[in-house]
This record gives sequence, structure tokens and C-alpha cells, in this order.
Amino acid sequence: MATDSPIRIGVMGCAEIARKVSRAINLAPNATIAAVASRSFEKAKSFATSNGYPESTKIHGSYESILEDPEVDALYVPLPTSLHVEWAIRAAEKGKHILLEKPVALNVAEFDKILAACEANGVQIMDGTMWVHNPRSAKLKEFLSDSDRFGQLKTVQSCFSFAGDEDFLKNDIRVKPGLDGLGALGDAGWYAIRATLLANNFELPNTVTAFPGAVLNEAGVILSCGASLTWEDGRTATIYCSFLANLTMEINAIGTNGTLSVHDFIIPFKETEASFTTSTKAWFNEFVTAWVNPPSEHTVKTELPQEACMVREFARLVGEIKNKGAKPDGFWPSISRKTQLVVDAVKESVDKNCEQISLSGR
Amino acid sequence: MATDSPIRIGVMGCAEIARKVSRAINLAPNATIAAVASRSFEKAKSFATSNGYPESTKIHGSYESILEDPEVDALYVPLPTSLHVEWAIRAAEKGKHILLEKPVALNVAEFDKILAACEANGVQIMDGTMWVHNPRSAKLKEFLSDSDRFGQLKTVQSCFSFAGDEDFLKNDIRVKPGLDGLGALGDAGWYAIRATLLANNFELPNTVTAFPGAVLNEAGVILSCGASLTWEDGRTATIYCSFLANLTMEINAIGTNGTLSVHDFIIPFKETEASFTTSTKAWFNEFVTAWVNPPSEHTVKTELPQEACMVREFARLVGEIKNKGAKPDGFWPSISRKTQLVVDAVKESVDKNCEQISLSGR
Repeated sequence: MATDSPIRIGVMGCAEIARKVSRAINLAPNATIAAVASRSFEKAKSFATSNGYPESTKIHGSYESILEDPEVDALYVPLPTSLHVEWAIRAAEKGKHILLEKPVALNVAEFDKILAACEANGVQIMDGTMWVHNPRSAKLKEFLSDSDRFGQLKTVQSCFSFAGDEDFLKNDIRVKPGLDGLGALGDAGWYAIRATLLANNFELPNTVTAFPGAVLNEAGVILSCGASLTWEDGRTATIYCSFLANLTMEINAIGTNGTLSVHDFIIPFKETEASFTTSTKAWFNEFVTAWVNPPSEHTVKTELPQEACMVREFARLVGEIKNKGAKPDGFWPSISRKTQLVVDAVKESVDKNCEQISLSGR
Repeated sequence: MATDSPIRIGVMGCAEIARKVSRAINLAPNATIAAVASRSFEKAKSFATSNGYPESTKIHGSYESILEDPEVDALYVPLPTSLHVEWAIRAAEKGKHILLEKPVALNVAEFDKILAACEANGVQIMDGTMWVHNPRSAKLKEFLSDSDRFGQLKTVQSCFSFAGDEDFLKNDIRVKPGLDGLGALGDAGWYAIRATLLANNFELPNTVTAFPGAVLNEAGVILSCGASLTWEDGRTATIYCSFLANLTMEINAIGTNGTLSVHDFIIPFKETEASFTTSTKAWFNEFVTAWVNPPSEHTVKTELPQEACMVREFARLVGEIKNKGAKPDGFWPSISRKTQLVVDAVKESVDKNCEQISLSGR
């Protein structure tokens, strides 16, 4: 059986996150870095050198140029969110598959334009949410869908905060309205929202209501906020995101029979393994002074780092299309769109003084 | 130096929780069980026997009778919440100090009547929230007030749920409007609210807003709900409580520099020790694939079970009054009142379709 050659990925932009994903492309068994582009040739060249790219990597001095590269199958796009709609559509029109950083767009209307271009051109799109590709995430889903050990979900609470320093809060693209205008919501909140959707089997909530007390910078970009979500059958969730508080990332999902807790869901404490705790039918001893069935910890070995798992999955889907004539996979773009819809609804509720936003029909 | 004799406590009502507190009174070095009362002499006698009360324990066949007992210094009152206002006031009028189960009243107006009676009669009142007396709680406060390790609080999330079985959800006093009409909010929510107040140095929030999606039973008693809280300087909190989901109790407090997590804050996993995790200035390694300064666990040995620590502190305060002519302590009733105020505000917001409730001036 012939082995298909690795999927040739071009890196479109030299953002900090591209260093990590470049390493992941190198680690993924079915992908290779074929090219890198920046708005300046020198910057692209220097990025390639300092990140140990293969000698054969093509250096492009413009985004237009990498789109024309016939030896690039797919593009990794870590550009500022405001540029996604333009460059993702242009990439799709050139037949390039797209691994697109999150948030995927400034709003779902923009993302729908990207999706339409991908569909029209038969290209795969996937967003850059790494943690869902960690082998741990499959174990989380397994527990959450276990009707004995977990039962029916009642609520899920998720948060992601980190403390941006003075420079970050002044200069990072994630606090600039013209670049990543969704701020902490589009960045940290994206992950927390994705976690609530994963726990809800990717069903969209009915309503989204921002908490009072969101913090915005002078330019109106969200630095911290939270929201409560409801589903038709009584399930609820809360999300919280912030650039202003110590690094914390939590999922706490509570079902009728069980509880799942993850304390490092976005970036595991260690690269080589990832843990979570579960409890089932926890209760108290006779005098209610200690627990029976307290939570227990489970550890999953991580053969490849989660970002390399992401690249491997993306390259696998691209390979199916390129080598076997398959159609693009619909699951990954569908959950990108749902995450963006909830991001948009939280933003709308923040903007409308915590009005309850209905998602029905969206 | 003469040792003062133990404070003589009467147990007023034979609720399930009274078994645990009776054991705690026996364990506390400065307290003793002097009497027990029920509406039936036989029930009180049987309760005394089955809980190993001393032979000398006086058995009272009515609540009126135990109030008249001159050999009772103080009363532990685990009666249904709807009866608190009547019996706590009558106890105070008889000069009995009061250890009152939570929620302390059906609303703060009732509790203020109790407080007035206690003040008029110079008696101590303390509520039955045990976990704040665990030696761990002092360590939690120490971390939360450390400006280097924790910094300024930004948000605190707290939840307490347990899965009531069919019998509980049908027959327990906590689902009966005429008995414990505050339901899950007054029971489980009380603890979560107390945790958010503790993290906020017992400052009252400015606003309280219930989450959409509260669940009420047919009689209108809350079975699950949540709320977001805000403070003037941008601090926020969320609380969640439920009778409908697996046993879970979490505090997650995030400051500018640090994070505190407690997974068993109300009843520790073990009776003999209690843990919590902290992190300070947590961040990522170079490729953002693992943590630097991940959370670390701290364990506090529990010399006495927390409920015995509570009785010891209550008896100490009563002893100061009885033996040294001290005035009743004001701290404990003040935090009971604040907790009740927030309970009331959540209830009001649930009743008013998630309207934002202002606590200023309350």
C-alpha cells in the first residue's frame, strides 16, 4: 500500500502562535511545512530560520504570493481576526485548504462568507482550537455521554483567564478594535464557550445573557466578561473570560449522576499527559463528615502534543480530499460556526446592557 | 486558674442534622449536651438514646419546656426555617444563647427581629455554617488576603449541588413552601453565597442578578438556580445551587496574581484533613505547551471535625459572656445577615424574571 505524501502546509503570517503551530506541523506525521509568508520577505525568512524550517521551505514576501504557490496544499492562517474574511476567502478561491486561527471571524456573517467560499471551492476548513484534539478530550466526551456515570447534563461552568501585562494590555492585537476587536471574548472566551458546547453535545443554547460587570478598555474592547446560557430542556452554563486575572482554566460539568472537572483544559499542565477528575453518585458518610465516592483522577498520555494532533487531523481530512476525492468534512466548520454564534451573542448582550439574547433561528 | 465548666447546650428539635451536631457538642472540649427537646417526649428520649447522650441529659416533651430549663445555657436550633423567627426570639427572651441552623430565616426582615431580640437580651447568636470553622478556612483567607500571592480579587465562582432522590424531592422539608421555603437557595445556595462573601472580605455586593433557567417545583420552591454578583470596584462572582445534580462543591477565586480552588469546601473529602490548591503568577513555557508555576496542593490537618470547631467557637463566645461579662460577638451575626441579604436578593431576582437587584442601602 503506497503511503500518501505529507500534506504541504504554508504558514501565512508570522504571529507568535505560528511558532507553536510550525513545531506542530513538523511533529505531525502526515504534514510538512512547505512555505511561509509575511508582508516582508526578510521577516518571513528570519521567521523560517529562527524556527528551524527545512531548507526547502519557500519564502514569500506577500500573502498574495503564497496563495499562488502550487506546492502548497493548505494554509495555516494566524492573521489578526479582522483580516480573516479577506484572506480565507482568497485562499479558498485558490483551492487552498485552511487551518484558521480563532476566533474565526469578527462575527458569524463574516464566517458564513468564508464557509461559502470553502464550499464553492471544495476546500477543508478547521479552526485552530487545539485542546479539542488532545486525546483527553475524547475521554471527556466519553464520560459526559455515559448515562450511568454522568447521567444527563445539568450545568457546565467554564472559565479562562490570564493576566496580560502592561505591554499586552496596551499593544497586543487582542486589545485593538481594528485587529482582534472581540478582545478577551474572542480569545479566552472562545475556549470557554467551546467547552460548554462540547459538554452540550454541540447543541446551541437557546439564550445567552451577559453578566453585569464586563470590563472594556477605552477603545471599547472587552477585557473581561461572563455570561449565562440556557438550553430548552433546562440545561444551563456559565462562561467567564478575562485578560485581567491570573491564569486559570476550568471546566466543571455536573450531571444528574456525575461530575467532571478539568483544571487545565486549554493547555495541559504537562505536554506529555493530561488529567481530569470524575465522580459518580458522590455522597456522604453516616454523619455527613466525609465523602463516599469522592472524585478520582484520570490521566491520559499524550503521544503527540495536542496541537500536533490538530494538524494531523487537519492533514488527514485534506489528504482524504486530495488523494481520495472525498468531500470536505462538515463537523469542524459546524462547531466553529456555533462557537462564533455564541461569541456574537455574548458580545450583543454586553453591548445591550445584559439583555437576554435568543439564538433561535440563528 | 480555675477552668470554667463547659457550656450546657440544649438541642431543640431532633432533625437529622442534630445527630451530627450532637456528636460535635460531645467532641468540643468546652461544651456539653444538657438537654434535648422534641414536640413529643418519646421522640426526644429515643433521639437521646440512639445518639448516646449522657444519662444526665434532660428530656423535654415540648420546645416551651426546654426554654424554661435553668441548666441550659444555649440552644442549638435545627427547626425548619419557617419556625426560626418564633423560637429564636422566645429563646433569646429566656436568655438562651442560640446556635441557629441556616438559612437563619425566610428573609432578612425576620432575621432582623431575631437579632433585635438577641441584642435586647444580651445573647450570642451564630449560624450553623460549619465549613467556615474548619482550620482550612483560615488558610483560605490568608491566601486571599495576600497581596503578592493572590493580589486583588477579580472573580469568585462557587457552586454547591447534590442530587436529591425521589423521596427527598417529594417529602424533604427543604422542598416544602411552608417549612424551608427557600429550597435549594436557602440550603445549598447559602454555602455558595457565604463563599463569595468570604472571598470578598464580607463586603456586600452592589448587585445580584439571577441566571435565566431557575428550576422551581410545583409549589414554587427553588430546586436549582444561579446568579451573578457585582461589587463597586469591578469584582464579580457567580453562585450556583441545585438539588438536581451530582454532589459538587467548588470555590474558584481568581485574583490579579493568584488563583484559589477548593473542591470540597462544605464537607471535606476526609474528616481528618482538608486540602486546597493555589497558584501564583501561573504562566506557560516557551512554546505554550505546558505550565510554569502550575497550581500546588496544600493540606491542613483537622484536629477536631469542623462542626466541633464551630461548637467550640460558639461555646467560647458564650463562655466569655457567662463567665467574664463580655458582650456578644458581632461578627458572626453580621455575616449571617449578609448571607441572608444575598439569598433574599437572588430569590427576588428569580421571582422578577432575572431583574438586576440593587443591594445598596440594605
